[in-house]
Amino acid sequence: MQTGRSSTGNHVTSSLGPTDGARYDERFASRAAGIVSSAMRDLMALSERPDIISLAGGFPDTESFPRAIWDEVWASVTADHIASSLQYGPTEGLSELRERICEVMAHEGASARPDDIIVTTGGQQAIDLSIRTFVDPGDTVLAEGPTYPGAVPSFTTYEADVHHIPLDEDGLRVDLVEERLAHLAAAGIRPKLLYTIPNFHNPAGVTMSLERRHRLIDIAHRHELLIVEDNPYGQIRFEGEPLPTLWELDGGEGWVVYLSTFSKILAPGMRVGWVAAPQPVLRKMNLGKQAADLCSSTLAQRFVIEYMRRHDWREHVARLNDVYRGRRDAMLRALEEELPAEATWLTPAGGLFVWATLPDFVDTRDLLAQAIKNQVAFVPGRGAFVPPRGEGDPDRGAHSLRLNFSGVPEPVISEGVARLGRTVASWVELHRALGGA
Amino acid sequence: MQTGRSSTGNHVTSSLGPTDGARYDERFASRAAGIVSSAMRDLMALSERPDIISLAGGFPDTESFPRAIWDEVWASVTADHIASSLQYGPTEGLSELRERICEVMAHEGASARPDDIIVTTGGQQAIDLSIRTFVDPGDTVLAEGPTYPGAVPSFTTYEADVHHIPLDEDGLRVDLVEERLAHLAAAGIRPKLLYTIPNFHNPAGVTMSLERRHRLIDIAHRHELLIVEDNPYGQIRFEGEPLPTLWELDGGEGWVVYLSTFSKILAPGMRVGWVAAPQPVLRKMNLGKQAADLCSSTLAQRFVIEYMRRHDWREHVARLNDVYRGRRDAMLRALEEELPAEATWLTPAGGLFVWATLPDFVDTRDLLAQAIKNQVAFVPGRGAFVPPRGEGDPDRGAHSLRLNFSGVPEPVISEGVARLGRTVASWVELHRALGGA
Repeated sequence: MQTGRSSTGNHVTSSLGPTDGARYDERFASRAAGIVSSAMRDLMALSERPDIISLAGGFPDTESFPRAIWDEVWASVTADHIASSLQYGPTEGLSELRERICEVMAHEGASARPDDIIVTTGGQQAIDLSIRTFVDPGDTVLAEGPTYPGAVPSFTTYEADVHHIPLDEDGLRVDLVEERLAHLAAAGIRPKLLYTIPNFHNPAGVTMSLERRHRLIDIAHRHELLIVEDNPYGQIRFEGEPLPTLWELDGGEGWVVYLSTFSKILAPGMRVGWVAAPQPVLRKMNLGKQAADLCSSTLAQRFVIEYMRRHDWREHVARLNDVYRGRRDAMLRALEEELPAEATWLTPAGGLFVWATLPDFVDTRDLLAQAIKNQVAFVPGRGAFVPPRGEGDPDRGAHSLRLNFSGVPEPVISEGVARLGRTVASWVELHRALGGA
Repeated sequence: MQTGRSSTGNHVTSSLGPTDGARYDERFASRAAGIVSSAMRDLMALSERPDIISLAGGFPDTESFPRAIWDEVWASVTADHIASSLQYGPTEGLSELRERICEVMAHEGASARPDDIIVTTGGQQAIDLSIRTFVDPGDTVLAEGPTYPGAVPSFTTYEADVHHIPLDEDGLRVDLVEERLAHLAAAGIRPKLLYTIPNFHNPAGVTMSLERRHRLIDIAHRHELLIVEDNPYGQIRFEGEPLPTLWELDGGEGWVVYLSTFSKILAPGMRVGWVAAPQPVLRKMNLGKQAADLCSSTLAQRFVIEYMRRHDWREHVARLNDVYRGRRDAMLRALEEELPAEATWLTPAGGLFVWATLPDFVDTRDLLAQAIKNQVAFVPGRGAFVPPRGEGDPDRGAHSLRLNFSGVPEPVISEGVARLGRTVASWVELHRALGGA
């Protein structure tokens, strides 16, 4: 039977019928059958529609990257590193880059040696390798609820049974972690790991308090619980002082795997992130990375090295933070003005996101369809939870939404939130007209 | 207990004892427990030892990349694309790049539209996504024996039960594929896919004949066997005419997934490869890629686009082929002179490798240890077979070795093969002194 893909023409449309789809369906691995799109990625596609103000993606600002620095970096790569930038590199990453990463980690409050690190293809691969290395299908994993929407397809890929632990304004409810561990232990279950974003959580915007960090490490040590600490936003701080990382509080006991990335402090187009982990874990991750992509782009790695050699990268971070602080403030002002009184949100002291919760008669998945008609987009809260495999509430996050403030200028943020406010207002009005509370 | 990773010092050595290793061992996923290093990657580490001539890695020549073209490409990126090169891109890759990939595929004898393609982080990720999408633990997969050493950790990651089908000078023994399918069908087993490298096979150097290509597609259609056609070397041809791809011979029936890469025709440091596949498969692979690394480096993608916009990339390929042809000839001459009469190999008409087989009292894994003392390295043949899970010969490939001729200049190849010859000669001598044949 002919499908639409022609072996000669260029203008044939694809026309795989349902029968053909079924042919593949019966062949997909169960991990592929179960995977759902990260809400975030689908919405990133909207960035190609200029009429829509997208508050959905987590795009850092790259427009403000200084042209003079760009030129200087390339001059430096060109002078000494053309052939090596074009060649394969070691799976664990260029050793000069791993040295630079130790400097960044020190600044993030985490000491490590170059041999404790492997470079990954962005922070996303660091997450993927962590789960790939530890999680068999059906294994239990703990994560915040909500959790990073981009981690959701990684969890489903490896068929993790994710237990979401609530968070509040002081971050992960560590008291509930201990409770859940006891509950699981009674059923003979030991979670493979706990995945957490302690600083400026994506999507919730909150930061884990110092007291909870100490308590979580204490739990990790007493219960032998492996913690995956994801820290992409630690340096994107608008006020206050940094808290110690879980990696550092672990004191070398080996119960923390640390993930971070250059995506937020330099630029995501590099796809350069990293993992720091105890040696036996690192060796397995290195093997996983060999299978995944052999090595990360040496061209991009070299860009990062030369950038860091020639510039005080902390100045660029400070510049970004100034931009983002203004944008966050613009968003908070607009939310105050535009959202109904029943809506709630917290003020993030850093990061890229505000997590807002609407009255419980608003389902943000349905709201999004209406919002797009009004030319504004956000990530519906459901995207920040792994769909439950058996029992479990399929409506977790249904009344919440994630709003990004790093990607667009202040006036655009104000206009976007105004459009959102109008969308919510007409929803509320309709609900009341239909006899709701 | 303290491990060696200090939270303050920089000069502490790692000292995780066996107890600590066991702590992680009991937590690793079964895919991670079973994975073994690609022989190739371990040996790539030798590239940092200048005293050793490495004929092990599959390094393309990047020294000959023209400086003038490099400058022009960066001038073009700088003029119009700084901010977008630094930003996230769509998971499926930049649309301009996917258009360029269609041109490359047309040149490789495979017609596709941009929507049939997703960009991957090198050809390795294209392999990883293919297996991730289709293979559940224990699923049967067919592959040539030997197969690409870099695919071995991907197969073990997803716990495939790989059946190796022998090849000869006309490539995969397609007659044996049909036989194996019948044998498996009798046991109620349908293989998930067949992974093949029809052109200038890595490591065997052979090319599948036209007659076998037709027959393989006929088998695919009659038995509903999905074929993953990996074609990284199709354009690295030193003589003769290209044969039709399996993708093209499939005639749009949707039984072929096509993988290729810019690593061999431009440069591997980009980590830019691709998959072409029927739409339902592509959608699943896109979701897999979201989980794996969100998107490939936009910086590297932009480099490829501007390179292709401004230069006839086929000229660069022709230049590379001239270099490699000379190096292949130097290797074949040296093998003729230096290896014992019992050694055999085929003359590859393209690609990067010669696969040689030594007398059966030589185990090339043991030989490698001796060869490294003599300052030359190669990939032992065992690395090109997936270690059998149950029954099956653990010594497959034990007497063979893969030699790369693309990575070093002709005089170095000659000296490397001379060192190899001396290593083999003293092995043979020792064997005879000990009373062997």
